[in-house]
Amino acid sequence: MAEKTSKPYVAVIGGSQVRPELADLACEVGREIARQDAILLCGGLTGVMAAAARGAQEAGGVSIGILPGPDRRSANPYLTYSIVTNLGHARNILLAHSADALIAVDGSYGTISEAAIALKLGKPVISLEIDWVLNGLTPARNPQEAVTRALSAIRR
Amino acid sequence: MAEKTSKPYVAVIGGSQVRPELADLACEVGREIARQDAILLCGGLTGVMAAAARGAQEAGGVSIGILPGPDRRSANPYLTYSIVTNLGHARNILLAHSADALIAVDGSYGTISEAAIALKLGKPVISLEIDWVLNGLTPARNPQEAVTRALSAIRR
Amino acid sequence: MAEKTSKPYVAVIGGSQVRPELADLACEVGREIARQDAILLCGGLTGVMAAAARGAQEAGGVSIGILPGPDRRSANPYLTYSIVTNLGHARNILLAHSADALIAVDGSYGTISEAAIALKLGKPVISLEIDWVLNGLTPARNPQEAVTRALSAIRR
Amino acid sequence: MAEKTSKPYVAVIGGSQVRPELADLACEVGREIARQDAILLCGGLTGVMAAAARGAQEAGGVSIGILPGPDRRSANPYLTYSIVTNLGHARNILLAHSADALIAVDGSYGTISEAAIALKLGKPVISLEIDWVLNGLTPARNPQEAVTRALSAIRR
Repeated sequence: MAEKTSKPYVAVIGGSQVRPELADLACEVGREIARQDAILLCGGLTGVMAAAARGAQEAGGVSIGILPGPDRRSANPYLTYSIVTNLGHARNILLAHSADALIAVDGSYGTISEAAIALKLGKPVISLEIDWVLNGLTPARNPQEAVTRALSAIRR
Repeated sequence: MAEKTSKPYVAVIGGSQVRPELADLACEVGREIARQDAILLCGGLTGVMAAAARGAQEAGGVSIGILPGPDRRSANPYLTYSIVTNLGHARNILLAHSADALIAVDGSYGTISEAAIALKLGKPVISLEIDWVLNGLTPARNPQEAVTRALSAIRR
Repeated sequence: MAEKTSKPYVAVIGGSQVRPELADLACEVGREIARQDAILLCGGLTGVMAAAARGAQEAGGVSIGILPGPDRRSANPYLTYSIVTNLGHARNILLAHSADALIAVDGSYGTISEAAIALKLGKPVISLEIDWVLNGLTPARNPQEAVTRALSAIRR
Repeated sequence: MAEKTSKPYVAVIGGSQVRPELADLACEVGREIARQDAILLCGGLTGVMAAAARGAQEAGGVSIGILPGPDRRSANPYLTYSIVTNLGHARNILLAHSADALIAVDGSYGTISEAAIALKLGKPVISLEIDWVLNGLTPARNPQEAVTRALSAIRR
C-alpha cells in the first residue's frame, strides 16, 4: 500500500449542486480516473465532487478531497482521504496547483476560478457539459474521452 | 488622517502587462475612484494594477495593494499602502473578499478568477474593454461610467 | 493624502480578550506607533487589536486590520482600513509577512504563531507583558521602548 | 484500496534539517503511526518530514505531504501522496486543521507555529526531543509512547 506514487493527479471540478444526469457523468469520470490508474482530487463536498469520488471508490481507486471548511465533517462519504484547509474559496487555488490535469463537469463561478488558475499554471483543463466559456479548455464528448485526454496531455 | 473610513472599497483588476491605451483607461479608473471618494484596492503589481494606483495617486486618493509575493519590494511605486501575502494566486481571493465592488480592465485568467469569486460572493463586477466572457458582469463604456456603476451597485 | 508611503509597518499582536490594564498598554503602543510616524497593522478584531487601533486613531495615525473572517463587519471600529481575508488563522501568516516589525502584547497561541513566523522571516519581534516563552524575542519595559526598539531594529 | 478511511490522521512536525539521531527518532514515529494504523501527515519536505514519511513507507503505511511550494518536485521521495499549496508558511495552518493529533520532533519556529495553532484548535500535540517551550504540550519519552498518546487523545 505504500511506495511513492508516480500516478498522475486528476482533479474533477464542478458544482456542489447538480442534476442527476450530470452526477452520473461525474461518477463515470471518477470511475474512469480509477480505471486508468490515476488519483482523483476534488473539493471534497457534494454534487460533482461527491459523485466523482463515489465513482473512484466503486472502481477501487483513491480520491483525496481538499475541503474549504474548518473540519473534516463536511467531507462527502466517498473520499479515501481528506485535507482540511479552512481557506474558503482560496482552496480552489490549491486544487489547481495540486492537479496535473483537471476535468470540469458543469459548475459555475467556483469551477471557473479553478479552471482559470489551472490554465494560468499551464495545466490541461478538459470540459464536459459546461455552459460557460473560457479560452483554452479542451472539450470532451464523454467521460472516457475526458480522462484519456487529461492523461495524454499530462504525458506529453 | 485617522477616523474609521466608511468609504467603499473598489478593486481594479486586470493584466500585469497591458497595452498603453488600456493602461490609460485603468489610470482614469483609478483617478475616478479617488474623485468619487472611494478606496482603491488592487493586486499591487504592474500593468492595470500600477496604472490604476497611479491614477488614484494623481487624484489625491488612497490605494492599497494586496501583493502575491513574499515581500514589499515587488509593489508598484504608486500604492499608498501594501499588504504582503506570499499566497501566490490565492491572494486573488482576498481581493474578491476585500472589495465592495470590482472593475475589470482587460486581463486574462487571473482576472477571471477574481471576477468569478467576486460574483460568487454577490459583489458587483463592472467590465471595461475585456475580451473574455463571464455571466453576471456589468459592462461599462468608460471609466466614469464604470466607477459610477460600481458605487451605485454598492449603495443599492 | 496620497504619495507612496515609505513609513514602516509595525504590527501589534495579542489576544482578542484582554484585561483592562493590558488594553491600556496596547492602546499606548498604538498611540506611540502613530507618534513615531509608522503605520499600525493588526488582526482587526477585539482586545489588543482594537486597543492598539484606538490608540493610533487617537494620535492621528493610520491603522490597517487584516481580518480572518469573510466580511468587514467583524472589524473593530477604530481601524482606518481593513482587508478581508476569509483565511481564518492563516491570516496570522500575512501579518508576519506584511509587518516590518511586530510588538506582542499579552496573547496566547495565535500570537505565538505570528511571532514564530515573523522570527522565522527574520523580523524583529518586541514583547511587552507576555507570559509565554519564545527564543529570539526582544523584551521591552513599556510602550515607548517597545516602539523605539521596533523602529530602530527596522532601520538597522 | 478504496473505502472511506476512518483512520485517524497524525501529523509529524519538525525541522527540515535535523541531526541523524533525531531523524532516526522521526522515522520510528512514522513507522509506529503506520503500525498503529493511522495516516501520517507532514509538510512534505526534508528532515523530520522526510524521515517520518520514510518510516511510514517502511511499515507499509500511507503518508500525505502538504507542500508549501508551487509544485510537486520539492516533495520528499517517501510520500505516498502530496498536496501542492503554494502558500508558503500558511500551509502550516493546514497541517493543524488536517491532523487529528500532532507529534512534534525537534523543530523550531515553523514547528512552533504549527503546534500553537493546533493547540488553539484543541488538538493534542505530543512532543519528543524538543528544546522549545509551549504551554499545553504532552511530552513523550519515545516514539511508541508518542503515537500511543496521540491516538488515545483522539479517541477520548
